[in-house]
Amino acid sequence: MNFYQKLSQTVSSHMGLCIGLDPTLDKLPIKFHACSQPLLDFNLEIIRATAPYASAYKPNFAFYEVYGEKGWNQLAETIKAIPEGKIVIADAKRGDIGNTAKSYAESIFSGLHADAATVSPYLGSDSLIPFLNDASHGAFILAVTSNPSGVEFQDLIVDDKPLYIKVIELARKINHNKNVGLVVGATKPTVWQDVIKYAVDLPLLVPGIGAQGGDLNSLKLALKGYSAPILINASRSILFASSGDDFAKAAAQEAQTLLSQIES
Amino acid sequence: MNFYQKLSQTVSSHMGLCIGLDPTLDKLPIKFHACSQPLLDFNLEIIRATAPYASAYKPNFAFYEVYGEKGWNQLAETIKAIPEGKIVIADAKRGDIGNTAKSYAESIFSGLHADAATVSPYLGSDSLIPFLNDASHGAFILAVTSNPSGVEFQDLIVDDKPLYIKVIELARKINHNKNVGLVVGATKPTVWQDVIKYAVDLPLLVPGIGAQGGDLNSLKLALKGYSAPILINASRSILFASSGDDFAKAAAQEAQTLLSQIES
Repeated sequence: MNFYQKLSQTVSSHMGLCIGLDPTLDKLPIKFHACSQPLLDFNLEIIRATAPYASAYKPNFAFYEVYGEKGWNQLAETIKAIPEGKIVIADAKRGDIGNTAKSYAESIFSGLHADAATVSPYLGSDSLIPFLNDASHGAFILAVTSNPSGVEFQDLIVDDKPLYIKVIELARKINHNKNVGLVVGATKPTVWQDVIKYAVDLPLLVPGIGAQGGDLNSLKLALKGYSAPILINASRSILFASSGDDFAKAAAQEAQTLLSQIES
Repeated sequence: MNFYQKLSQTVSSHMGLCIGLDPTLDKLPIKFHACSQPLLDFNLEIIRATAPYASAYKPNFAFYEVYGEKGWNQLAETIKAIPEGKIVIADAKRGDIGNTAKSYAESIFSGLHADAATVSPYLGSDSLIPFLNDASHGAFILAVTSNPSGVEFQDLIVDDKPLYIKVIELARKINHNKNVGLVVGATKPTVWQDVIKYAVDLPLLVPGIGAQGGDLNSLKLALKGYSAPILINASRSILFASSGDDFAKAAAQEAQTLLSQIES
């Protein structure tokens, strides 16, 4: 099955929920603090509890790399534990020259068995294509990011258009295997009209709902009728819904609530 | 000692040699193929042989991550083996939103004990500043990259200037701790006048000499009189100078030759 088919299947009703697996040790319930693999043990319970509601999981590599090889091992084991059929997005934001990008893609797709990666566009198409050569895997290219200073370069005007539109245009141009998506933050509602117009049929990964302040209702309104699958990502609001022993139950409830808001 | 002082000391005469530690298994001499830690064992011999000529070493993370946690371990051990006084640049090209960038910086500076990281600018200043808060560590921001498609975004015209100048301007603006540098590929000689004009006093890391086709003499001419330390990077031309048992000796000879060309 190719990437687009798998994504379309798991995001069955236009918009699906993606859960960001971004554990930080100081926010984990106290019982994990003595574990030898606290990130993994926490993730396993989160995945088990939230799987009925999630179309995708998205571990951000920074939160694992900070623990070195032990962190990398927990990242690999976390990905292995994600149920068949879910999309696994390696949120690594890689971007390097051709032969190096090839190694990053191999690491993420062959080594970790993720379905897709997030990639950064500054180095242009030859840094992105190694992630796109195989139609069974995909890449979400950073277009509009959810952080306050994202505008510093992304909103610069080039040929009467903001730079992020140039990124979207390139993304479409290299979408030969129908496996290119875009990252578009939910915190910047002013960009949605542009995104819809230029992205046309590229899948979207939308972080920034919840903890970062993006509003789901205005997002849904803006994206009504958009023709490709959309993944709404939430991380901290689900992972840390409770800091007590009921954290998994609270995460499931939060995921269920968010999914019903997404689907309503 | 802060980052700028350490860099200035190791690059004693304006321009120094940086060796990219980018081993790929299929290019290593045959004797390493049976080792349990082939990248590390190879790197140890390369570092020992080339240390008299190198101001800095720059492992590119892709070539280690592709071997998962074992690769990460060999990356960490490689960095530990780099002699005191040399600058270690973590060529990771990271770039993520604030709290995530903080984890990446912690991973690279506190976890791996590198002196500096390469970082990608697309997410703007709040993605870069976590790498710059501590004056004893630094970051080289990608400005002009050495790959063919680097021009796709980097040369777009914004306010009558190419985008890479906007990146350089931001780099100077956030250089409060004198620990910001730039990556400027040697393969694009037309950019050097701009770089010198706008970078003013930012250290430069210059890949693209040798295997990628950059010309050292025209680079030296263009950068004559530039006021900050410059690191000329070479990777494959040194690492794989010979594929036989004399690989370390050949690497040393290549490094010595390149350094004498740099300094002549």
